[in-house]
Amino acid sequence: MYNFRTDLACERRELYQKANGLDEIDGIETEQKGDDIRINTVKVTNESGARAIGKPVGTYITVDIKNFKIADDDKIQRASEVVTEELKKLIDVHSAKTDDILVVGLGNRFVTPDSLGPKVITDIEITRHLLKYAPQYLEPGTRPVSAVSPGVLGTTGIETFEIIKGIVDNIKPKLLIVIDALASRSIERISSTIQIADTGIVPGSGVENARKSLNQENLGIPVIALGIPTVVDLGTIIDEGLDLFITKLQEKAESNEYLNKLKEKDNYEEIKEALTPNNYNMIVTPKEIDDLIEKMKDVIARGINFAV
Amino acid sequence: MYNFRTDLACERRELYQKANGLDEIDGIETEQKGDDIRINTVKVTNESGARAIGKPVGTYITVDIKNFKIADDDKIQRASEVVTEELKKLIDVHSAKTDDILVVGLGNRFVTPDSLGPKVITDIEITRHLLKYAPQYLEPGTRPVSAVSPGVLGTTGIETFEIIKGIVDNIKPKLLIVIDALASRSIERISSTIQIADTGIVPGSGVENARKSLNQENLGIPVIALGIPTVVDLGTIIDEGLDLFITKLQEKAESNEYLNKLKEKDNYEEIKEALTPNNYNMIVTPKEIDDLIEKMKDVIARGINFAV
Amino acid sequence: MYNFRTDLACERRELYQKANGLDEIDGIETEQKGDDIRINTVKVTNESGARAIGKPVGTYITVDIKNFKIADDDKIQRASEVVTEELKKLIDVHSAKTDDILVVGLGNRFVTPDSLGPKVITDIEITRHLLKYAPQYLEPGTRPVSAVSPGVLGTTGIETFEIIKGIVDNIKPKLLIVIDALASRSIERISSTIQIADTGIVPGSGVENARKSLNQENLGIPVIALGIPTVVDLGTIIDEGLDLFITKLQEKAESNEYLNKLKEKDNYEEIKEALTPNNYNMIVTPKEIDDLIEKMKDVIARGINFAV
Amino acid sequence: MYNFRTDLACERRELYQKANGLDEIDGIETEQKGDDIRINTVKVTNESGARAIGKPVGTYITVDIKNFKIADDDKIQRASEVVTEELKKLIDVHSAKTDDILVVGLGNRFVTPDSLGPKVITDIEITRHLLKYAPQYLEPGTRPVSAVSPGVLGTTGIETFEIIKGIVDNIKPKLLIVIDALASRSIERISSTIQIADTGIVPGSGVENARKSLNQENLGIPVIALGIPTVVDLGTIIDEGLDLFITKLQEKAESNEYLNKLKEKDNYEEIKEALTPNNYNMIVTPKEIDDLIEKMKDVIARGINFAV
Repeated sequence: MYNFRTDLACERRELYQKANGLDEIDGIETEQKGDDIRINTVKVTNESGARAIGKPVGTYITVDIKNFKIADDDKIQRASEVVTEELKKLIDVHSAKTDDILVVGLGNRFVTPDSLGPKVITDIEITRHLLKYAPQYLEPGTRPVSAVSPGVLGTTGIETFEIIKGIVDNIKPKLLIVIDALASRSIERISSTIQIADTGIVPGSGVENARKSLNQENLGIPVIALGIPTVVDLGTIIDEGLDLFITKLQEKAESNEYLNKLKEKDNYEEIKEALTPNNYNMIVTPKEIDDLIEKMKDVIARGINFAV
Repeated sequence: MYNFRTDLACERRELYQKANGLDEIDGIETEQKGDDIRINTVKVTNESGARAIGKPVGTYITVDIKNFKIADDDKIQRASEVVTEELKKLIDVHSAKTDDILVVGLGNRFVTPDSLGPKVITDIEITRHLLKYAPQYLEPGTRPVSAVSPGVLGTTGIETFEIIKGIVDNIKPKLLIVIDALASRSIERISSTIQIADTGIVPGSGVENARKSLNQENLGIPVIALGIPTVVDLGTIIDEGLDLFITKLQEKAESNEYLNKLKEKDNYEEIKEALTPNNYNMIVTPKEIDDLIEKMKDVIARGINFAV
Repeated sequence: MYNFRTDLACERRELYQKANGLDEIDGIETEQKGDDIRINTVKVTNESGARAIGKPVGTYITVDIKNFKIADDDKIQRASEVVTEELKKLIDVHSAKTDDILVVGLGNRFVTPDSLGPKVITDIEITRHLLKYAPQYLEPGTRPVSAVSPGVLGTTGIETFEIIKGIVDNIKPKLLIVIDALASRSIERISSTIQIADTGIVPGSGVENARKSLNQENLGIPVIALGIPTVVDLGTIIDEGLDLFITKLQEKAESNEYLNKLKEKDNYEEIKEALTPNNYNMIVTPKEIDDLIEKMKDVIARGINFAV
Repeated sequence: MYNFRTDLACERRELYQKANGLDEIDGIETEQKGDDIRINTVKVTNESGARAIGKPVGTYITVDIKNFKIADDDKIQRASEVVTEELKKLIDVHSAKTDDILVVGLGNRFVTPDSLGPKVITDIEITRHLLKYAPQYLEPGTRPVSAVSPGVLGTTGIETFEIIKGIVDNIKPKLLIVIDALASRSIERISSTIQIADTGIVPGSGVENARKSLNQENLGIPVIALGIPTVVDLGTIIDEGLDLFITKLQEKAESNEYLNKLKEKDNYEEIKEALTPNNYNMIVTPKEIDDLIEKMKDVIARGINFAV
C-alpha cells in the first residue's frame, strides 16, 4: 500500500486521486459544506474504496476550523456546536438514547502534543456514578457517561487495547468514543482539524507506533473516534519542501532529469534517515501548541458533552 | 465496631489498648526498630486480633520519617531504602523473582492531597512492554512491571475496583502493589508516614467514601498496599483538641462531671455537624502539603523501583 | 489591638461590635444588598473607625457567593459581573479612563491555596505591549494593561514590595490592582468571598508572614486590592470550636467559672502551640480547594478584564 | 551582517570560517576538551573578532552533553558538575565571594520549549531572605542569592528588561545570572547543549523577537548568561536539508548550475515564506522535549546551586 503518512481520509482521498490521475474513486463519496468552519465528509462505501485509501468502510467527517490560532470564545463555541451536531448523527446511528457511553482519551498527559486526549477527559461531564449513587441530582432519561485516560504503552507497560478491553468487558458500555492525536501531512491542520469517524482508531497512530485497533471487531461495540492532528513528522515536511522546490525549478525549466525522477518518488525514508541524528523522534509543531491544545480541548469536550 | 477514624494499624492498636486498658491484645504482635526513621510492625495473627482492630489478618509495617518536612536528598534516599527493604520482604513472601507485577496509583491527580498515587506512577520504571518489544535493552531475569493510575469514581464514573479488575483479568499479573492516601488521626503523620500492608486496600479510604476492597479475595492475586496519610479530618482534630483541653482541666481539678463524661465519649459526629457548613468536606493539611507530596513521591517511587 | 485573625473588614466590624456591645461604630458605615450573591460594603470614614477595626480609611466591599462549590458557568458569570461592577466604581474614583493599570497577582503558584493570584494573572488580557508594537489590533481608547506575578519571599528571596516598587518606578502605571489570599475566620468564606478595597494590601497576610504594605503611601499610586480567603488557620477553628462548645454547656447550665472565663479570653495562642507539632503550619481547607480556586480564578479574571 | 540564525558562538565561528575559507579568525581563540561531555570555549578577544561573529568581546563556553536523551542520574550529576566548574570560573572573575547574586529565569512557563528558565528558578536555593530574617540557619559566609522569573512580554505586557532593571535598581545585586532559551542550527543540540557567556543576553532570542539586551552596559552589573537551545526554526532545518541534498547531487555530478548557485545563497527567507501558512511560528523539537527540559532543569539548577 502507498505510504500516505496521514490518517485523514480526506487527505488520503486527494493523494490517491492525484497519484492515479482520477476524478472519482470507486467506493468513495464526498460532500463539503461550510466555509469558516468547513465540514468535509468522506464515505467509504465498499471494499474497493477501502483498499484505495487504506481505511475501513464507514464515515469520515473532517471539521477544519480556519484561523483557529486566533479563535475567540465565540468561535470555539461555534466549532464545538459543529462537533456536537456531526457527532450526534453518528451516535444516533450506532446507539439508543440512554445507552451507556464510555469516553476514552488516548495519549500521554506529559507530552504536550500528545496530551489532548487526557485533557479532554478531565472536562467530560460524568453521570454513570451519579445514576447509581445520587440519581436525584439528574434529570430523568440522563444517559450514563463514564470516562478514562488509560495512559500510553511507554508509561504503563500495557497495550492501550488491553486496558480498554478489560474495562469494556467489566462495565459493558454500549458505545465507545475515543479521542486521540493523528498524523497529518499538513501544517495548517495542526490542532485545528478534527476527524470524526465511526470505524474506530489505532491507538497512538499520531505520535507512537501503531497498535491493535480499537474497533467494533475487536471490542464488540461500535467505536466513534475523534482524531486531531497535533504534529507533523519532520521527514514529511522536508519531503514536501523538496517537491515544492522542484516544482518551482520545473516551472522555470531549470530542473533536470535526476530532479524530475526525484520528485516522482517518495524520498521520505532517505530524508528521515539523513535528518534524524541520535534517534531523536523530531516533530514539527506550532510554537503556540500549548495554547492550541487548550482551545481544542474546549471544542471537543463541549462538543462531546452536548452530544451525549 | 469502634470508629477508629484511622487506617493505620499501629494507631488502632494503641487506641484499642487504651480504650480497653490492655497491655497486650490477643492475636496482635508488635515490634519496633529505628529512631530517625522508625519502623513499627504490627502482625495480626488471628481473627480475634483482626476483630479487635478491624483489620484483616496480615502484616502492617509503619515507617515514620521524623522531620520529613525539612528532609534533604540524603534523608529521602535513606527513607526510600527502608521502604525498599520492608517492601521486598513482603514481595518475596507473596511472589516469585520474575513474577509479573502491576503497580496501581489510586487517587485524583488534580486534588493535591489525593495526588500521591498518580504521581508515584509517573516515576515507576516500566519494563513489561520492553520485555515484549525490546528485550535486548534489559538485563536477563528482569521482572515485568507495569503501572496504571485508574482515576477516581468522581472523575471517571467507574468504580476503581471495576477498572482494576478488568485490567487484572486481561493482563494477569501475579502481584498488585497499590498506593493510596489514608486517613490518620495524627497531624504529625501527614505525608511523613507510610503503612505497608499485605492485606490489600479499600480505595479512597483517606479522602473519598470507601469502596469495594482491592484484595486477594476479590482480585485473585496478592495485594500489597502502601498507604500514606495526607490529610486529617477536621472533626477528628477538634475532637482530639477537646480531649486534650479537658485533660488539662482535670489536671488542674477544674473539670466537672459533664466534662469528664464528655471526654469519655466520642464527640466526633456532633462536632463534625456543628463545624461543617455547606457540606464542605473540610480537611486539615500542612501548608507545605504540595512540597511534602513531591518528597513522599520520591521516597515511594524509588522504594518500589528498587524493590521490584 | 485586638487580634481579629481576619482581614475581612466586615468580619472585623462584627467582632468589634459584639466584643464591645455596640450597635454602631463611630466612623464606620455599612450597606448590604443582594442575596444569592451578597454585597456588603463597609466604609471606614474617619480615624476613629480605622482604629476600631484596624483598617485604614477607605471602602471595603465584600462579595459573598452562596454555594460557590456547586456554582455552574452561569453563576460564575453573574459573580464576575458583580465584581466588574463594584471594581469599576473604585477604578473610576481613582483613575482616568485610559490610565495605565498594572495588575499584580501575589502568592505562590506551587502552593494550591496560595496560587490564586498567579493563576488570575495568566488570564488577564494584556494590552500594554500591543499599544506599543501593534496598536492596529486594538480599538482606539484601549487602556494599557500589564500584569505580573512577582512570586513570594520564600521562593525569590526578595520582598514582594521591593519587586513591585521596582516595576512601578520603571513603567509608571497610574493604578495598581492587586490580587492576594486573605485570612478569614469563617470556613464558609473559603474561596467563595472576595473583598475589594481601595486601601491597598499587605502581601501574604493570608498564608505568609505580613510584609510592607502595597499602598498609595508606599508606592505613590492608588492600590485596589482583591483579597480572597482561601484557608482558615487551624488554631482559629479550634478556638471557635471551644467557644461554640462552652456556649452549649452554658445553655445547659453545665459550665463552670473556669469555662466561663475561658470563653471570655482568646485562647488562640495556647491552642496553636498545643496543636502544632514539628512547626507545621497547619491550614484548614475544603477538600475541593483545587476546584474552588479554578472557579474563583474565572470570576476574578473575567471581573477584572471587563472592568479595565 | 550574515544571518547566522544561531546564538551559539561556536556555531557562528564555524559558519564564518567555512563561509570565508579561513583557518583562523582574528580576535577569536578557541579551546576544546572532554568527550562524553564536551567543553568548547570561544574567546572573543577584540572588536574584529566581535564583528566577525556578531557577538561582543567576552568568553563563550559551550557544554555539549552527548546522548542526553538517555542520560541517567549519574550523567545528569556529572553534567551539572561541569556547569558548576565553568560557571564558577566566570563568577569568580566578575564578583567577590559573598557578593549578592540575582538569578533570572527568562521564558514562558506555559510554552514547553520556552519554560526552562522559570523551571530552573523553582529549584534555585534562595538565601537572601534567610540572611535577613533567619541567619542562624545559614553557615557564616553564605552568599545572598535571590531568584525571579519575570515572565515574557506577551503575558505581562512589560519588556523583560524593564522588569529586571526595576528589580536590580531596587535590590542592587552585584552580579546577574540569566537563563534563557537560545536558537541553534543543530537538531542534535536541542536541550542537550548549554552556552555559558559573560556578555549578557538578549531576552527571548530563542523563541521570541529580540529585545533590549540584559548586559553590563544596560544594567550596570556583570551579567552571566546560560543559554540552552530548545528549538530549531523550521526554515533553518529545511534550508539545511536542501544544502545537504544538493551536496549529494554534486557528489554524483547530477547537479546543475542553478542548484550550485542555490546552494551558495541563503534560501532561508523564501523557504520560510513558502512553508509557513497562517503566520504559524513553526518549531522543530524532539518528541521528548518535555522530558529533556526536566533533565536540563536539573543539570542547570544543580550547576548554579553549587557554583554560587
